[in-house]
Amino acid sequence: MGLSVKLMNDLSDGVKGQRNLITDVAGVKVGQVTIDDGDVHSGVTAILSHPGNLFRHKVPAASCVLNGFGKSVGLVQIDELGTIETPILMTNTFGVGTALNALTKQMLAANPEIGDTTSTVNPIVAECNDGDVSNIRKMAISEQTIIDALAAVDTDFEEGAVGSGRGMMCYDLKGGIGSSSRIVTVDSKHQYTVGALVMTNYGYLTDFIVNGAPIGAPLAKVLAEDKHKEEKGSIITILATDAPLNARQLKRMAKRASVGINRTGGYIGNGSGEIVLAFSTANQVDHFESSEFDTVTRFNDNQIDLFFRAVASVVDESVLSSMVHAESIIDRKGRLRLNLVDACKRLIQQQPAYKEMVEQVFSQLGVVK
Amino acid sequence: MGLSVKLMNDLSDGVKGQRNLITDVAGVKVGQVTIDDGDVHSGVTAILSHPGNLFRHKVPAASCVLNGFGKSVGLVQIDELGTIETPILMTNTFGVGTALNALTKQMLAANPEIGDTTSTVNPIVAECNDGDVSNIRKMAISEQTIIDALAAVDTDFEEGAVGSGRGMMCYDLKGGIGSSSRIVTVDSKHQYTVGALVMTNYGYLTDFIVNGAPIGAPLAKVLAEDKHKEEKGSIITILATDAPLNARQLKRMAKRASVGINRTGGYIGNGSGEIVLAFSTANQVDHFESSEFDTVTRFNDNQIDLFFRAVASVVDESVLSSMVHAESIIDRKGRLRLNLVDACKRLIQQQPAYKEMVEQVFSQLGVVK
Amino acid sequence: MGLSVKLMNDLSDGVKGQRNLITDVAGVKVGQVTIDDGDVHSGVTAILSHPGNLFRHKVPAASCVLNGFGKSVGLVQIDELGTIETPILMTNTFGVGTALNALTKQMLAANPEIGDTTSTVNPIVAECNDGDVSNIRKMAISEQTIIDALAAVDTDFEEGAVGSGRGMMCYDLKGGIGSSSRIVTVDSKHQYTVGALVMTNYGYLTDFIVNGAPIGAPLAKVLAEDKHKEEKGSIITILATDAPLNARQLKRMAKRASVGINRTGGYIGNGSGEIVLAFSTANQVDHFESSEFDTVTRFNDNQIDLFFRAVASVVDESVLSSMVHAESIIDRKGRLRLNLVDACKRLIQQQPAYKEMVEQVFSQLGVVK
Amino acid sequence: MGLSVKLMNDLSDGVKGQRNLITDVAGVKVGQVTIDDGDVHSGVTAILSHPGNLFRHKVPAASCVLNGFGKSVGLVQIDELGTIETPILMTNTFGVGTALNALTKQMLAANPEIGDTTSTVNPIVAECNDGDVSNIRKMAISEQTIIDALAAVDTDFEEGAVGSGRGMMCYDLKGGIGSSSRIVTVDSKHQYTVGALVMTNYGYLTDFIVNGAPIGAPLAKVLAEDKHKEEKGSIITILATDAPLNARQLKRMAKRASVGINRTGGYIGNGSGEIVLAFSTANQVDHFESSEFDTVTRFNDNQIDLFFRAVASVVDESVLSSMVHAESIIDRKGRLRLNLVDACKRLIQQQPAYKEMVEQVFSQLGVVK
Repeated sequence: MGLSVKLMNDLSDGVKGQRNLITDVAGVKVGQVTIDDGDVHSGVTAILSHPGNLFRHKVPAASCVLNGFGKSVGLVQIDELGTIETPILMTNTFGVGTALNALTKQMLAANPEIGDTTSTVNPIVAECNDGDVSNIRKMAISEQTIIDALAAVDTDFEEGAVGSGRGMMCYDLKGGIGSSSRIVTVDSKHQYTVGALVMTNYGYLTDFIVNGAPIGAPLAKVLAEDKHKEEKGSIITILATDAPLNARQLKRMAKRASVGINRTGGYIGNGSGEIVLAFSTANQVDHFESSEFDTVTRFNDNQIDLFFRAVASVVDESVLSSMVHAESIIDRKGRLRLNLVDACKRLIQQQPAYKEMVEQVFSQLGVVK
Repeated sequence: MGLSVKLMNDLSDGVKGQRNLITDVAGVKVGQVTIDDGDVHSGVTAILSHPGNLFRHKVPAASCVLNGFGKSVGLVQIDELGTIETPILMTNTFGVGTALNALTKQMLAANPEIGDTTSTVNPIVAECNDGDVSNIRKMAISEQTIIDALAAVDTDFEEGAVGSGRGMMCYDLKGGIGSSSRIVTVDSKHQYTVGALVMTNYGYLTDFIVNGAPIGAPLAKVLAEDKHKEEKGSIITILATDAPLNARQLKRMAKRASVGINRTGGYIGNGSGEIVLAFSTANQVDHFESSEFDTVTRFNDNQIDLFFRAVASVVDESVLSSMVHAESIIDRKGRLRLNLVDACKRLIQQQPAYKEMVEQVFSQLGVVK
Repeated sequence: MGLSVKLMNDLSDGVKGQRNLITDVAGVKVGQVTIDDGDVHSGVTAILSHPGNLFRHKVPAASCVLNGFGKSVGLVQIDELGTIETPILMTNTFGVGTALNALTKQMLAANPEIGDTTSTVNPIVAECNDGDVSNIRKMAISEQTIIDALAAVDTDFEEGAVGSGRGMMCYDLKGGIGSSSRIVTVDSKHQYTVGALVMTNYGYLTDFIVNGAPIGAPLAKVLAEDKHKEEKGSIITILATDAPLNARQLKRMAKRASVGINRTGGYIGNGSGEIVLAFSTANQVDHFESSEFDTVTRFNDNQIDLFFRAVASVVDESVLSSMVHAESIIDRKGRLRLNLVDACKRLIQQQPAYKEMVEQVFSQLGVVK
Repeated sequence: MGLSVKLMNDLSDGVKGQRNLITDVAGVKVGQVTIDDGDVHSGVTAILSHPGNLFRHKVPAASCVLNGFGKSVGLVQIDELGTIETPILMTNTFGVGTALNALTKQMLAANPEIGDTTSTVNPIVAECNDGDVSNIRKMAISEQTIIDALAAVDTDFEEGAVGSGRGMMCYDLKGGIGSSSRIVTVDSKHQYTVGALVMTNYGYLTDFIVNGAPIGAPLAKVLAEDKHKEEKGSIITILATDAPLNARQLKRMAKRASVGINRTGGYIGNGSGEIVLAFSTANQVDHFESSEFDTVTRFNDNQIDLFFRAVASVVDESVLSSMVHAESIIDRKGRLRLNLVDACKRLIQQQPAYKEMVEQVFSQLGVVK
């Protein structure tokens, strides 16, 4: 889905994939479970890189820590070996241990040789702190939640206040899961897809801008949000492509997520754990190889800007999409947490002078009132 | 100087220093020499962190490589020891060797013990490639140019197409040297200054936006610039503060330069060497210490967002300031290279429909026609 | 304990702490639980940095990834903030999730504000793969095991095939937990302690040397070990000191663990996850600070070699100590896994020509036959 | 050359290349100029990765900073792009600027498009401080010295107190240039070469061991060397291979140089700049590519230990070889600086009890008295 309109100031060529989702990268699937139970508003989002055995056929991968105030798991080995060998799970901070356990058990069940005749396995779990909205101290994620999310993977999936994004807040408005994709054309003939999926839980409302329009400042007055309060947010970004980029190139690509993240007013806050994972479905690495050598296609960095531009755009759009798709919800303390549209409507009600700015923002985000 | 008006969407509290220059950080001075000789349009910009002996009294420092397509010198030791012990020089790419030699000689003259009874010295030289505008192959920077720049240091200095910025292009418009500062107030009582100085040589005109207004696209049509051409740019950012931040905290601060750099449409292009150096004038480290221990003030990361916000703002404003202050010049091939104002004027002439957007941009940048 | 004799070729001044354990650093305690149940030979080792509330009073810390083929958890945030705010747990690879859960619950119980009115918490769990000896696929570590290890902390603790080291193999001989300490004297008057605790699970027998004596090669023939087999090991090193080293300096110190690790024949193998964590009990960082500023003692890097030397020595001795203290055990497949002493005895039995070399090794390691 | 005998405790399979030099890697050549003029004892050593145009056909490469107290130039871009595009120069610390200038000029002359129609060039210069032996303050390296070294490249070259190693001291004994190579056999059929060239200027005599024999301690007493003096050394390591390792794998390989460096008693001292550069002559990257894609052979990390072992061994042997080949010289203050052999002879003269240890060391190093 992403935005239903063209992204303003799109740094890429602006050609969106068929679904405008990370699943436009062939083979990638996403599954989610949303928990909305009393004061718990949380969930799990799972990303599969391809339909085969992920451990036996690893994908080239890289991570980038834009700001390390976070508890994501598995990055050490990605950085060393340049591969991911499990699904990628996203959940709340205190669900990481259970996600590790459930994912490990599933990998062990599917691969009897792990921990017996071959090495162990490196599970990937990323997290944000949804404690502002959800009672995170209840540690409500169960192994079954993980199993269900992994079982639910599909090429279509919802965005907004769903899955692990259920309790996340972006720029003090309702955030969650967002996704988008772009088609990159190399040498006028080779076409590749770049997709992003973000879990947005960062930013201050006073800083929020949409294409430079300072809509956040008046919204903050209406919602009484303060930019000097303690940041406890984060944003996780997953990038996927079918282009033959190696781990070094994927790491370069991952760094560019910051461009998209900050177009709306982010500044990589101290308390914001900003982690990017990037993988390619091309040039997979076999765990049990028949030869020490294989032959792969290599892409020259000379034209890698095409991918950097696509990353900036898909992340930018995914952030906005997470906000556009998220519904307003009641948080753990019974407070109504508004989404962007509802907050803007309240703004106009209270301060009609902002009508024009709101309409411009809605138009640029494809929001139909 | 910086901008003469308030920066739109300023992430900081918006309080500028007295000069609105990096030299608002007490003790910091800048000296420049501009070369404009035939097809050579280049120069040197020197930054001194304090008026004392820089080798004997080192400043806590950090570097951040946003994109390493660059030839800046001295980062390895900054990263290890967390200090800078010489002036910081900026020049064109092929002037680095000569800058190293001249700076080394000056350090040797001022410190007879270097290389004799104590260790050597780590000169810092940053660079951008001004070869688009200047005949960089002539290697026109002489040791005397360096000496003169170091001798010319002052608290006041010019911005725009001067010093090492003489031949630099920013978003395909004339760039160069820009600077700005902010006052950061901690706990409502302690005041610190954060200053930036940038050498801007990055970006594509089609991507250029001013507070979201896509002024670059129509300018690119008028000037026939293409965003798919090869990037050969770069941006060097120097950050200074008098707050007691240590090397780890300065590195965190340096990373946030990317926020300011990319607000105008940057995306950390493949060919853009983006290097940030940050230093604090507080808690200096003595080369010849009387004790292995000293006592220093430590700042808690809990409130470091105040500095991150200031960095985003001073870098953002410095980039814009470099463009606002730069004059249009004739390049090595006799081509007229327009600055932002002249380009906008041409745009309106050719396409009057953009008059309103140009006036908005001029207003937001404090440009008086 | 460590070795009962002087370490040969000690790079430090050779002054051991009172216990010759990491707990010679005042405040540090270690607790262990050993599991020896059927085909499960595993356990947990917990390290506390000080007796107070670890979350409220964080210790300056750093990590160093010598080789990232590993699944340790918590490093991202250590690298960013330079602190550790929980106990450090060590267990087997598939116990990490459960360790995370148990540690999180304990931190939540002790700190009601975590995840409610303040941020979350960053649990530290390090691991090695004991699957060669233990049935790691059973995931036998329970939350109670973790709780018991944390409850068992003391200044005295056992080395060898105990705690998380129960199932570990070092140079294909029985390894496990080893520890040692050194007193560092600065300026002839200030005394500090440097301690190490290692979990050894790395190395090939053919490579094993003791002070250059190639005892591993003949042992490998007797035990039929092959250096071209797949490495599945790892070594975790924990360093503690009471010297006022900051995160940057602790990271430098952590890097020097590699010197001690490799003196016995290691070469940082591809499959060996080699992770070092270092912390200082000095200059603690308060979570709820009364002021943004505090005053700390800073140590000049000029004399940091004293600590680098101590690190090389305590790690070297800790590795050897883990082997000297480990008993021979029966592994998950019923195979007898010999410790160093038993293996050497078998060697002499089969090849009496090695008697002199074995006696020299025993003498240098303080082994009494 | 390297050692004329088998390296004791060789971690590799022990198969040396034909010349036992880095030039056993096909295409690699080394050129040196030695300066011995009054109180100047210095020089230049140049390494060419292949006989073609290095700028147009870049080699995959990586750097590793074991300790960053150093001034080597060019690492930022190697880390970003994973290639080297010039010869590698080594000289003394204050010769770096001149080396940059001379190398830049040569690259410009050979490539008229650099800085004109294409990007600039990233010269690589590594350095150690030979100020203990040579009057480094004279800055005696001229551009002609560099040109001559580059012109002198050959497959045969001298080791010891020659080239940039002329004034270097290793473990307080005469050091300089050392080299060695190993043949690595993969899958019993594919043969690759791994070569090292080191410039040794690190270590304390009291720490020096040869295969565990503590020969340094008595030598230090005879020569009155003190391990608590200030370290001002460094070691530069260049690794070459014809195996198809990519930049990530080369970086992993480069890290293992530390194993070889420290086998003789090093501990990565604070003041020791320890930089490793590694390149592969396989899978070269074309500057002016005809397609954005090419096809390359990829090596699976599963067997990369073969290369890690070779690196440990060639670096270990190269260090020893630099000491064995270096002659005793008179330094800038007229002091006789002994090489290992002369120092050992003096030891036996003064303390005949060490005769056996010296003979063992000589035998293990292939020294014929």
